[in-house]
Amino acid sequence: MDIDVRAILEAVERGELSADEALTQIKLKPFEDLGYARVDLHRRVRQGVAEVIYGAGKTAEQIAGIAKSIATAHQGAVLITRMDAEKAEDVKQTLHSQSIKFEYYDKARIGIVGETPEPSGIGRIVIATGGTSDIPVAEEAAVTAEALGNEVLRLYDVGVAGIHRLLESKEEIMKASVVIAIAGMEGALASVVGGIADCPVIAVPTSVGYGAAFEGLSALLSMLNSCASGVSVVNIDNGFGAGYMAHMINHMSKK
Amino acid sequence: MDIDVRAILEAVERGELSADEALTQIKLKPFEDLGYARVDLHRRVRQGVAEVIYGAGKTAEQIAGIAKSIATAHQGAVLITRMDAEKAEDVKQTLHSQSIKFEYYDKARIGIVGETPEPSGIGRIVIATGGTSDIPVAEEAAVTAEALGNEVLRLYDVGVAGIHRLLESKEEIMKASVVIAIAGMEGALASVVGGIADCPVIAVPTSVGYGAAFEGLSALLSMLNSCASGVSVVNIDNGFGAGYMAHMINHMSKK
Amino acid sequence: MDIDVRAILEAVERGELSADEALTQIKLKPFEDLGYARVDLHRRVRQGVAEVIYGAGKTAEQIAGIAKSIATAHQGAVLITRMDAEKAEDVKQTLHSQSIKFEYYDKARIGIVGETPEPSGIGRIVIATGGTSDIPVAEEAAVTAEALGNEVLRLYDVGVAGIHRLLESKEEIMKASVVIAIAGMEGALASVVGGIADCPVIAVPTSVGYGAAFEGLSALLSMLNSCASGVSVVNIDNGFGAGYMAHMINHMSKK
Amino acid sequence: MDIDVRAILEAVERGELSADEALTQIKLKPFEDLGYARVDLHRRVRQGVAEVIYGAGKTAEQIAGIAKSIATAHQGAVLITRMDAEKAEDVKQTLHSQSIKFEYYDKARIGIVGETPEPSGIGRIVIATGGTSDIPVAEEAAVTAEALGNEVLRLYDVGVAGIHRLLESKEEIMKASVVIAIAGMEGALASVVGGIADCPVIAVPTSVGYGAAFEGLSALLSMLNSCASGVSVVNIDNGFGAGYMAHMINHMSKK
Amino acid sequence: MDIDVRAILEAVERGELSADEALTQIKLKPFEDLGYARVDLHRRVRQGVAEVIYGAGKTAEQIAGIAKSIATAHQGAVLITRMDAEKAEDVKQTLHSQSIKFEYYDKARIGIVGETPEPSGIGRIVIATGGTSDIPVAEEAAVTAEALGNEVLRLYDVGVAGIHRLLESKEEIMKASVVIAIAGMEGALASVVGGIADCPVIAVPTSVGYGAAFEGLSALLSMLNSCASGVSVVNIDNGFGAGYMAHMINHMSKK
Amino acid sequence: MDIDVRAILEAVERGELSADEALTQIKLKPFEDLGYARVDLHRRVRQGVAEVIYGAGKTAEQIAGIAKSIATAHQGAVLITRMDAEKAEDVKQTLHSQSIKFEYYDKARIGIVGETPEPSGIGRIVIATGGTSDIPVAEEAAVTAEALGNEVLRLYDVGVAGIHRLLESKEEIMKASVVIAIAGMEGALASVVGGIADCPVIAVPTSVGYGAAFEGLSALLSMLNSCASGVSVVNIDNGFGAGYMAHMINHMSKK
Amino acid sequence: MDIDVRAILEAVERGELSADEALTQIKLKPFEDLGYARVDLHRRVRQGVAEVIYGAGKTAEQIAGIAKSIATAHQGAVLITRMDAEKAEDVKQTLHSQSIKFEYYDKARIGIVGETPEPSGIGRIVIATGGTSDIPVAEEAAVTAEALGNEVLRLYDVGVAGIHRLLESKEEIMKASVVIAIAGMEGALASVVGGIADCPVIAVPTSVGYGAAFEGLSALLSMLNSCASGVSVVNIDNGFGAGYMAHMINHMSKK
Amino acid sequence: MDIDVRAILEAVERGELSADEALTQIKLKPFEDLGYARVDLHRRVRQGVAEVIYGAGKTAEQIAGIAKSIATAHQGAVLITRMDAEKAEDVKQTLHSQSIKFEYYDKARIGIVGETPEPSGIGRIVIATGGTSDIPVAEEAAVTAEALGNEVLRLYDVGVAGIHRLLESKEEIMKASVVIAIAGMEGALASVVGGIADCPVIAVPTSVGYGAAFEGLSALLSMLNSCASGVSVVNIDNGFGAGYMAHMINHMSKK
Repeated sequence: MDIDVRAILEAVERGELSADEALTQIKLKPFEDLGYARVDLHRRVRQGVAEVIYGAGKTAEQIAGIAKSIATAHQGAVLITRMDAEKAEDVKQTLHSQSIKFEYYDKARIGIVGETPEPSGIGRIVIATGGTSDIPVAEEAAVTAEALGNEVLRLYDVGVAGIHRLLESKEEIMKASVVIAIAGMEGALASVVGGIADCPVIAVPTSVGYGAAFEGLSALLSMLNSCASGVSVVNIDNGFGAGYMAHMINHMSKK
Repeated sequence: MDIDVRAILEAVERGELSADEALTQIKLKPFEDLGYARVDLHRRVRQGVAEVIYGAGKTAEQIAGIAKSIATAHQGAVLITRMDAEKAEDVKQTLHSQSIKFEYYDKARIGIVGETPEPSGIGRIVIATGGTSDIPVAEEAAVTAEALGNEVLRLYDVGVAGIHRLLESKEEIMKASVVIAIAGMEGALASVVGGIADCPVIAVPTSVGYGAAFEGLSALLSMLNSCASGVSVVNIDNGFGAGYMAHMINHMSKK
Repeated sequence: MDIDVRAILEAVERGELSADEALTQIKLKPFEDLGYARVDLHRRVRQGVAEVIYGAGKTAEQIAGIAKSIATAHQGAVLITRMDAEKAEDVKQTLHSQSIKFEYYDKARIGIVGETPEPSGIGRIVIATGGTSDIPVAEEAAVTAEALGNEVLRLYDVGVAGIHRLLESKEEIMKASVVIAIAGMEGALASVVGGIADCPVIAVPTSVGYGAAFEGLSALLSMLNSCASGVSVVNIDNGFGAGYMAHMINHMSKK
Repeated sequence: MDIDVRAILEAVERGELSADEALTQIKLKPFEDLGYARVDLHRRVRQGVAEVIYGAGKTAEQIAGIAKSIATAHQGAVLITRMDAEKAEDVKQTLHSQSIKFEYYDKARIGIVGETPEPSGIGRIVIATGGTSDIPVAEEAAVTAEALGNEVLRLYDVGVAGIHRLLESKEEIMKASVVIAIAGMEGALASVVGGIADCPVIAVPTSVGYGAAFEGLSALLSMLNSCASGVSVVNIDNGFGAGYMAHMINHMSKK
Repeated sequence: MDIDVRAILEAVERGELSADEALTQIKLKPFEDLGYARVDLHRRVRQGVAEVIYGAGKTAEQIAGIAKSIATAHQGAVLITRMDAEKAEDVKQTLHSQSIKFEYYDKARIGIVGETPEPSGIGRIVIATGGTSDIPVAEEAAVTAEALGNEVLRLYDVGVAGIHRLLESKEEIMKASVVIAIAGMEGALASVVGGIADCPVIAVPTSVGYGAAFEGLSALLSMLNSCASGVSVVNIDNGFGAGYMAHMINHMSKK
Repeated sequence: MDIDVRAILEAVERGELSADEALTQIKLKPFEDLGYARVDLHRRVRQGVAEVIYGAGKTAEQIAGIAKSIATAHQGAVLITRMDAEKAEDVKQTLHSQSIKFEYYDKARIGIVGETPEPSGIGRIVIATGGTSDIPVAEEAAVTAEALGNEVLRLYDVGVAGIHRLLESKEEIMKASVVIAIAGMEGALASVVGGIADCPVIAVPTSVGYGAAFEGLSALLSMLNSCASGVSVVNIDNGFGAGYMAHMINHMSKK
Repeated sequence: MDIDVRAILEAVERGELSADEALTQIKLKPFEDLGYARVDLHRRVRQGVAEVIYGAGKTAEQIAGIAKSIATAHQGAVLITRMDAEKAEDVKQTLHSQSIKFEYYDKARIGIVGETPEPSGIGRIVIATGGTSDIPVAEEAAVTAEALGNEVLRLYDVGVAGIHRLLESKEEIMKASVVIAIAGMEGALASVVGGIADCPVIAVPTSVGYGAAFEGLSALLSMLNSCASGVSVVNIDNGFGAGYMAHMINHMSKK
Repeated sequence: MDIDVRAILEAVERGELSADEALTQIKLKPFEDLGYARVDLHRRVRQGVAEVIYGAGKTAEQIAGIAKSIATAHQGAVLITRMDAEKAEDVKQTLHSQSIKFEYYDKARIGIVGETPEPSGIGRIVIATGGTSDIPVAEEAAVTAEALGNEVLRLYDVGVAGIHRLLESKEEIMKASVVIAIAGMEGALASVVGGIADCPVIAVPTSVGYGAAFEGLSALLSMLNSCASGVSVVNIDNGFGAGYMAHMINHMSKK
């Protein structure tokens, strides 16, 4: 069902390939089965970036195993998200012992296997947070975007309660290629940024707050209902998702 | 248990009042029982304003009956909230036929029985809305505040998606005595206004919006989580409550 | 605080402008105040597209008034969303009587004032729906994107319950510049499309469904939790928001 | 009221049983009362399988007591679910000291008392998970089904974000007797599997995820709203329930 | 990727088929595209039953069009669910004018195109409701199951508040092949039936009730938490889903 | 399993009854099956009161049929709740044409078939409402309690916002046998009454209110969390349930 | 405002009391102010039982202080609920050192200060639980009821999944004065017991369960929607409230 | 855009200021950028009070850094809220080592940097709590109000279940300038206080309670729906916000 099917069929027609060989090629597993995980080795080809490993709920052994499997297949940088420092240390030792490059970013809780590319893309991604407490989510977004080859500008603690702090950075926002607006509590940052920016805005609600913040629900609903156009939303605390989406937008090009 | 009890007791002590008469005075009903409603005739004395009738779920007959009962007791202006135009017409005919003054404000869905006072109070109440659709709630707040004797400035459609529309009115907001911030959808207006104003802000979430606005829940949570200080919140669409609260604040004075 | 402030200040310095004239220019209202709405006339300059009027909760008179105000300022196409056919007829007559071009798209419930541009942008926007009932939301997205100058391909009724219907269109999805995935009920379309596409995916939950669909909540949560990367979400039934966001992404360019 | 009542009554008629003896037999307790639990000894007869003990919230002593009571009554295998490793160790020592067979499956957190039957039933139960983190729930389902006498095929980490991983196993899914689809986050696996399979699908939402996954609510709603026919749902993380239901379906036969 | 791919490839190998022809066959559309809907013509082959049309939100014209498309492809009976009487009348006239058989079941709001099969399957499906108000949902389940070739026994109004009404039918429940338990309000019927029956139980929460029934949420949660084993749940008011699932279970057989 | 089983068994023992006859008697249907409803004819014996018919979602024909079935079995008064005036008129004509007594209470939306008893019981049931809009629910409770043979005192519109209105009636509350506290919005009445009364208090949340009242949810949660002891709660708007419960408490006696 | 006011006034009239003395008597504090708590010393007089101290969130010192204050005023037994074993040990030492009687019931987490009365009341309170895990809540109810002077029968683990376990105890339920039905998960026990019992039933939802049990929400909604009459509900896990309410009902008598 | 712009422009006009200098002054940063936080140094000027630091989620280092930055700019008292004792100790040592005054209030979890003013304002702020467990929130409100220069009266444990405890303090409530009503569970205190007081009431729901209190949701909804006028609400457990709002109201004056 892929675009190569015609080529394979033509090879069969030409007698260069038996039916059995053809079947094998068509069905060739585009993933490696590790028992506990099916590692997707074709993704970079299909989507232009490497596999991302969701670290939470996986053991250090599983993470190292998957990472090695991908790295061996020459997939470039592999991101491991939601990984605490302790697990990262274990993964590091395993991979280093096998001469596989690995670096850990603790504020972002991200580990990166392999080389990260030079910044490229249409322009600069601006990451703004409403408060100081939103920084871990922002770092997850920033490190993700940087690892995928983007220039990132961090504007932290520019919440709307002191609107002049945000307006001070108006120029950077207007020059941005993509803006990631990250806020907990009432999440108003997304709407205000959305009204200022003339580029796509990715809004990330965070679980920062208490009481009626309901673990990020308040910010989530607020951002979904943004009265500004050009704002879309990812899951609560999903810094990775926002960084990835921003990267895709910042690397738009004719196919 | 009231402050007059001592006076009554002293009168008994002086023999000017019998025990029975004293008991009667102490127990004197501070309300009139109409069967379907207990009209509170002492409230103006206690709280400085007249009874307010919640019109929804009451028949025109019940409304007119209660209104007449209060008006007869010389309580000054009576507000009837949440009353549709049709019911208002019926109430009007009944009250006018008995020479009781009554006026209906259709955008605010409020009827007023009797005379409204001249504007007084510490300063001006500013009422800001995020959009055009929030106007009915804003008018409920405005007419309430005006009927209780306040000067009101209306700033409609100054939502945060075009922040310069709001900043244009920054001076009026900074000069206000109290600000009422009314918005549906993401309700970000309250936080932004709360960051600009140096007076109390009453936030009113509205049910304007669709989808994840969940009938005002989004704006409500957003406003409760406002990162700005000096913001408190009333029920969804409760323009009356905001107008009343603003009035109380605008008439603060030493007791 | 804008980039022109220096220019104005230099003119004052050169004596070409008095302080008063400068102040006037700086404060020059970037919107027209119609009483019930503050029309934002600078938005096209700031964000590259014209004002969009949210038609729900506005009268035909208000809509026509705002539309005329914008059209007179030469802002190009104006979109009026969430407008029913009856209101559209009234708006049409008012605008046509003043020789202002207006066309109504009933499936999308959108009216367009003025001329729409030729398709431009990086590539083609693909709009996929899970079922037949999602079409109105999809049309809102499609007409929005087209009115802003994008080529749109509609893939309707390709829900995941018959995955081969979706896989059949795999090539179109892989060639897309942006994909808008629209689905109600369980909203699984977003994840599956997100796994196939190598471009940004905008997911739109719809209120299609019953029972535990809870008016779109099920699809909304599902899409926010998408296990595929490169998916972001807009409000329930917000076809306009998705079309607008897709347009911005499809017109990405160096600044 | 049971089917034996006629037999007992006929015995009374024949004078073989007194009214009192008959009453005793009819009322004969079909359970053993341990004070803290009423152990149901007739269930195997009634429903074809042994008692299952819900281990959470019970002490090791209570669990061992109930298990022994059932085992003594020759009920075959007894499953103890939701039992952590520490408690299992205590139960093991108590039961082994009384020569009662007991084995613990730690990934599934299930203990089994007595002998498990050979695989039987109509066909094979396929258990698919969306990700690696769903495996504990999947193992609960798998061990349950195996302990009740079913052949089980595990297909782990075949989530829809890389649809080819799932399609690779299409044949196994199409050959299955029953499929158990287990997924957290957006739970889309159930719908996609439901569209491929031509057998009953039991969907199990898991609490895997974060933010708007709301502890499994997102997957639960998604699965309940599945647009595929032939899908029914059990409680969040209820691997046991799914395994049990699949067993019943896989052992369907004329009565 | 289907089981016929080898056959096709072998034909190419044998020179009986050109690569192009092979490609065409492999890609042959297994559905007809009507523009507003992609009719799935292979489903009966794949899943053993015909297409089901979800009638709500589709026009009579769309329904008739889809129905005709399927009927023409000789797919046997087609079910149209959630169709009101008025729409059914329109569909009927269109189909009858084209000599296509169509019958409407008003209590179940189901229309059936074509011939329904004789009852077959392992045993009898028992459908029990908690009250009289649950009957429409029960009829949807019953007509669905009957149209797919099952014998159905209806036990209506046997709610647990008068447990003897249910116990009276204990024998029928114990003899059933599958039981569908339908209840609104507190949904306790599912648990009680689940404790009595020794066959799979499909629970259907209904939106019957008021107040804290929250449109079926109470019954839904109750059923998901059933303490009885062998109970799985479908969406609120989803009589069709239950009937379909019951049919699949009742037709289990070795493949 | 009933207390009469011994008697029946003894009759068999004495040869007065055959096994078959005994079985018949034991199984004798304690309800009449009307097809759409199983009318419970033994309930009065079991619970001391007659059947209650939930009128909502039943046709006038069904109601009349059930009512007649019960009335014919000499069960005394039958209550039909949640019946609108129009349906009541139809039921009235049907029953009167068959000389069955029927009266309709429109404020309570209750119809009563047959004779209601004289007031009896331990004392007087006091029914208090927070506002005028709660009266329909209060009347449902009052008419239910009266129809079952209780003296009822109505205290309407004694909400806590004017606490003196409630304190005025303190004596009646303290003398009550049972108090039913009915309120919407914040539902504080239950707690305040619970603090004053020294008898059981049944709290009924109502759906009166708007916005964050969420159709009675606010009052429901408030009442469930009452800090006063001796308060229990029934469903939102469930006046009947409260009246019935109060009746049972007011008729407590040694068995 | 109390019934003694007349007596006091008459004493003033007779010159036996000065106005000041009278005022003092009328205002005489009916509670002792400990700074952190206002101990209500009149409650036993007003409501027939002693103060109950909610132990959670209070320190051992505060608890002992309040308990001593009440005990000194000769109020009979004082219940301290929600107190863990450690805190109880501290309270015990403090009170015993002051020769105040104190006993702790660990399963119920209740401490009792002073003497508990002999069982009295109309009949016996039956406390039934759905499972073994509900026992702590049941013990809270049982110890409360016993401490207030009631005979209690415990029926634990009689959940509806094995309905015969419950029916076995039918006679005890039918003879009960009040039944307290305690269950988590789906909470169906309340409805089934409500259908069997002919006395008031107090339902207590518990937080037992997982997943869609949502910490007791499922059982709560289920119980509020019970289709059985004569069932009212208290807060989740509120064993005390149920025991107290049952006590009040079991001690009903003419005033 | 500020009021000083004219002055700056006039200085440019007079040649006293160059365009560049003017631009600098207009853009002069009104905050200090610490990297992790943008400290707002103009706020006291704008809003009359100093910056407040939300301590939760910030390290002791960050807190001390921000506090020092503000204190150095001579902003008067700085409040640090939601700071636990351990963090406070660290902050204390850092600040004291730099001779900056710092005091910690442990019940309120507030630290204060610098000097607090003498009480001023219109009157006295009364803070009432429903129970003993609400005291921490009340202390947060009290210390905040005191630190901003207000006289505060604490009325703790005056919940509505013993209404006489509250009525005893009626006079203090009626004399108050502002009342802060703090309660968890059912939150009825706000409505009762709102009915008594003739001043603005700020209601604070607390997370005190269990079960259906849902972490403060019950009290929140209750307070939002208060039937008393003049009540507005802040976030759950937001003692600071209430204290701040009360301060603003208590310091109302003509501008």
